[in-house]
Amino acid sequence: MAEIRHALTMKREDDFAAWYQEVITAADMAEESGVRGCMVIKPWGYGIWERMQRLLDDRIKATGHDNAYFPIFIPLSNFEREAEHVEGFAKEMAVVTHHRLIAGKDGGLVPDPEAKLEEPLVVRPTSETIIGDAMARWVQSWRDLPLKLNQWANVVRWEMRTRMFLRTSEFLWQEGHTAHGDEAEAREHTLRMLEVYRAFAEEDLSLPVVAGEKPENERFPGAVETWSIEAMMQDGKALQAGTSHYLGENFARASGIQYQDREGKQTYCHTTSWGVSTRMVGGVIMTHGDDDGLRVPPAIAPHQVVILPMLRDKPEDQALIDYCEVLRAALAEKCALNERVRVLLDTRPGKAAAKRWDWVRKGAPVVIEVGGRDMENGVISLLRRDALWNVENGKPAFATPTREEAAETIPAMLEEMQTVLHAEAKERREANITRGVASVEEVEAFYSTDEKYPGWVEVQWSKPTGEALEQVVERLKALKLTIRNVPVGSAAPDGACIFTGQPAAERILLAKAY
Amino acid sequence: MAEIRHALTMKREDDFAAWYQEVITAADMAEESGVRGCMVIKPWGYGIWERMQRLLDDRIKATGHDNAYFPIFIPLSNFEREAEHVEGFAKEMAVVTHHRLIAGKDGGLVPDPEAKLEEPLVVRPTSETIIGDAMARWVQSWRDLPLKLNQWANVVRWEMRTRMFLRTSEFLWQEGHTAHGDEAEAREHTLRMLEVYRAFAEEDLSLPVVAGEKPENERFPGAVETWSIEAMMQDGKALQAGTSHYLGENFARASGIQYQDREGKQTYCHTTSWGVSTRMVGGVIMTHGDDDGLRVPPAIAPHQVVILPMLRDKPEDQALIDYCEVLRAALAEKCALNERVRVLLDTRPGKAAAKRWDWVRKGAPVVIEVGGRDMENGVISLLRRDALWNVENGKPAFATPTREEAAETIPAMLEEMQTVLHAEAKERREANITRGVASVEEVEAFYSTDEKYPGWVEVQWSKPTGEALEQVVERLKALKLTIRNVPVGSAAPDGACIFTGQPAAERILLAKAY
Repeated sequence: MAEIRHALTMKREDDFAAWYQEVITAADMAEESGVRGCMVIKPWGYGIWERMQRLLDDRIKATGHDNAYFPIFIPLSNFEREAEHVEGFAKEMAVVTHHRLIAGKDGGLVPDPEAKLEEPLVVRPTSETIIGDAMARWVQSWRDLPLKLNQWANVVRWEMRTRMFLRTSEFLWQEGHTAHGDEAEAREHTLRMLEVYRAFAEEDLSLPVVAGEKPENERFPGAVETWSIEAMMQDGKALQAGTSHYLGENFARASGIQYQDREGKQTYCHTTSWGVSTRMVGGVIMTHGDDDGLRVPPAIAPHQVVILPMLRDKPEDQALIDYCEVLRAALAEKCALNERVRVLLDTRPGKAAAKRWDWVRKGAPVVIEVGGRDMENGVISLLRRDALWNVENGKPAFATPTREEAAETIPAMLEEMQTVLHAEAKERREANITRGVASVEEVEAFYSTDEKYPGWVEVQWSKPTGEALEQVVERLKALKLTIRNVPVGSAAPDGACIFTGQPAAERILLAKAY
Repeated sequence: MAEIRHALTMKREDDFAAWYQEVITAADMAEESGVRGCMVIKPWGYGIWERMQRLLDDRIKATGHDNAYFPIFIPLSNFEREAEHVEGFAKEMAVVTHHRLIAGKDGGLVPDPEAKLEEPLVVRPTSETIIGDAMARWVQSWRDLPLKLNQWANVVRWEMRTRMFLRTSEFLWQEGHTAHGDEAEAREHTLRMLEVYRAFAEEDLSLPVVAGEKPENERFPGAVETWSIEAMMQDGKALQAGTSHYLGENFARASGIQYQDREGKQTYCHTTSWGVSTRMVGGVIMTHGDDDGLRVPPAIAPHQVVILPMLRDKPEDQALIDYCEVLRAALAEKCALNERVRVLLDTRPGKAAAKRWDWVRKGAPVVIEVGGRDMENGVISLLRRDALWNVENGKPAFATPTREEAAETIPAMLEEMQTVLHAEAKERREANITRGVASVEEVEAFYSTDEKYPGWVEVQWSKPTGEALEQVVERLKALKLTIRNVPVGSAAPDGACIFTGQPAAERILLAKAY
C-alpha cells in the first residue's frame, strides 16, 4: 500500500469545516459575494442545483402540482395575522422602506425621504401568508380542491452566522403549498410530499435520509406538525434536508381560505407547505465529498463524462480532437438513468494533467484522458471518480478500454456509481447510529469521548410537551445536541424515557446538527 | 356567413386594452396580488413562461453560456460607480434599510431602529454592477476569456403605472453578462445574442420581430450601443421584446474587470449584457390572442392537446375515459417540434362544454371532445385553436377523424399551427408598416386619421445626436411616438432626413409603443 497524494490540502478527518470550505473553492462551486450573508453560486454549483431542480420538479409535477409565481414582497400586515409565524420570522427579515434614492449631502445616494413606503414591505422569508391570500381568492367550492401549488424562488432570512449553501441570507428553494377539504387528506398529503423528498434524496442525490416527525419545539412557526428528512454528514452531524408541514387550519383562518362544501356549508381548508433548498447542495458535498474534492452523483452531474484530449498546441491536435469527438458523439446518443448521457469534450487551453485534477476536484463522475499513444492504440484512459486510486501503487487508477468498449460500458458505469455512492453513505450512517442508549448520562458520556465524529444516538422518550419539553431541550442544548426526528418505521418503544423515567412513547434520534 | 358568438366579452377592435385584460383573466394567466405593482403569475401563465425558459435556456447554453446566481441585494455604493447607470435606475428602486421587525407602540410591527443597515441595500433592478464585481475576481488572464454567464432571476423596478406582464414592479427574466478581450469580439457577441433572441421569438413564439439598433436616447443606462427586437401588437403598437447591449469598457472600468493579455499587459475587458423577461408573455397575448381568448403557439403550450371526455357522473364514464386514455398514450409517444407531444386528459368535475370553452380561452392548440357516440363510432371531435369557427354556420369547426387518424395527424397539425401563427402575424405586420413617409407633417397626418390602429411608419433621418436628437424626441413625443430601432438589413437611405432636411443616414421605424 503506497501513500496517496490527495488533491486537496485539508482532510476530512483533520478539520471537517475547513475541508468543506476547500471543496467549495476547489470545485469552483460558490464564493462570498461581498454582500452580507449572500453568496455567488458559480456555474458548477449552479449546474448541480439546476439538475436537482429538474429532477425534483418532475417529481412535484408528477404528484399533480402546478408551478406558479407570487410576489417577493409581503406587506408587513400579512405577518401580523398568524401569531406564531411572525414570532418565528420577525427577527430575521429584510425590510424595504423606500422606493427611490436621491443624492445625499455628501454626493452619495440616500433613500429619498419623500419616497418612504406607507407600509413597509418584507422580502419573503417564506410565502405562506402571500400564497394564503391567493388561495382565499381561488378557492370557493369543494370543486376547487385540492389546490396544489409549487413555487421556485429566492427567499431571504437575515442570518448572523452564515456558511455557504448551508445557511445564507438569501437562498434558492422550492416551496409547495396546498389546500385541502379536510384534515385527513391534508395530513396524508404532508406525508406524500415527505416521501417525494425521501425518494428524491435517495434516488437522485444518493443521499440516505431518515424521514420522521420533528418534536414540537422544532416545528415550523405556525405548523401543527413538521416532518423532515435528516441526512448524516461525514462528520457525524445531522443535516435537515427537507421539511413538510401540516398547517391545520392556522393559515386558512389567518388568510380566510374557505370553501363551500358539498352540503353548502362554509368550511376552512386545511393547508400544507413543504420545501427543499440550495442547502441540499451542502448536504451532497458533505455526504459524497472525499479528500480529493467533490463526488457528484451521476444523476445530478452537469457533465457526467469529461473527455480531455492531451493537446500540445500543434497541428496534430486536430486528429486527437476528432478521435475524442467520435467518443463524445457515441456517448451523447446513449442513455443512463433515463436520460441522455451528458458528456463534455473539454478543449480549452491548459495542460491535460491540470485539467484532470480540476475535474476530479469538481467531482465529474468519469474523466477520460486521451493522448497520442492512446489514439494510436485505439484506446482511452479512464478514471472513475468513485474509485480514483490504485491503493497498491498510490497512483490514479486509470483503466484503458478501447474507445468502443468505453462507449458501451460507461452508461452502466454511471448507473452503478449512483448506487455505489448511496450504499457507501448508507453503510457509514448505519455504522454511526448508536442504539440502546438508556440514560442522559450515557448520552453525555457518548459525546464526551475522544471520538471526533461520534454520529447519532437513538433514545426513547415519553414525548413530554410544554415546560417538560423545554427542560429536555435545555439539557440537550448543554450537550450541543438536538432532537432530529421521530423516525418513521422505528421499532416500538420498550423502555423508559431517558429524560422523565416514564414509560417511553417513541424512539427519537439525537445529534449535533447543521 | 353566420354571426359568431365569440368566447370573450371584449373585442380587439373595440377596446384593445380592455380586451388584453380580459384575455389574461379568461385564460387564467395572472392577477393583481394586492402588493403594489406586483402580480401573481397563475399556473397557466407560469407554465407558458416555463416553456419559454426551457427553450431560451437551451439556446443560451448552446451558444456557450453557463448559468450562475448572484445576490438579489446590491450595496448602494455599487450603483454610484457608473454615473449613467445610477441616473437611469436610482429613481425606481426598492431599498432595504432594516433587517428586523419589532412590536411598535400600537402593537403592530415596525422596522427595528436597532437593526438599521449601515449601508442600504438595493433590490436588483439589473445585475451589471454585482456581476461586474464577480467578473473582476474571476478574470485574470486572457485564458479566462470570454467569460459567458447567464442568470434567471427576479428583478424589481418601482413602476408607477403597471400593466400585467408588460410593466410590473417585480418581473422575471434572464440576464446574460459576458466579458471579452476586445471590442470587436464583444460587439460581435452583442449581435449574436440579438440573433438568438430573434430566432427564439420567431421560431419558438411565432413572433415576427424587427431586429435593429436603438437610437442614442433609448440606450440602456451605461451602454455604448443597445439593440432590440421589436414586435408589432394587434393594435399596431410596438413592444420591445428583448435587448442586447454592448457596454464598451464602461462597466469594466467601474468594476475593475481587467486581464493580462498575451503580451502581459493589463487591459480592460469589453462587456455585454442582454435580457428577455416575462414581458414576452404579454407580447404573445397581444400578437396571437383573438376574440375567443389566447392562442398559444404549440412550442410554448404547457398542454398542446387537451382531451375532454364528456363525463356524466355515471358508471359508463370509465369506458369513455379508457377510450380517451388510449389516444392520450398514443399521442404522448409522438414527437412534434422536436419534443414529445404534451397531452392532458382532463377528467376534472365540470361540464364538457364549459371545459371546452375554458381551454379555448386558455388557447390550448388542440381541444378534443369525446362523447358516447364518438366512442361508438371510433372517432373523436377535434377543434384546432387556429381555425376555431366554421364561418358558414357560425359554429365551432369540429373535425371528426377516427381516433387512430387523430394520433397520426396531430403532431403535424401542431407543427403547422406554429407556422400558421407566425405567418399570420408577419402578414399583419407587413401590412401595417407604411414606408416612404417623407416629412414630419406626413407622419403627423398619418397618425391623425380615424384609423384606430395605424401601425408603424418607416422614415429616413440623418441620425442627429445630442441637442438635435432631443428636439426630435420631443417632436415625436408630442405625437406619442418613439423611435423603435434602425432595422438590420433595411434598404439604403436615399432621401432627406424628415427632421433636419440633411441627407439621410439610415431608415428608422416610428411607432406608439408599450
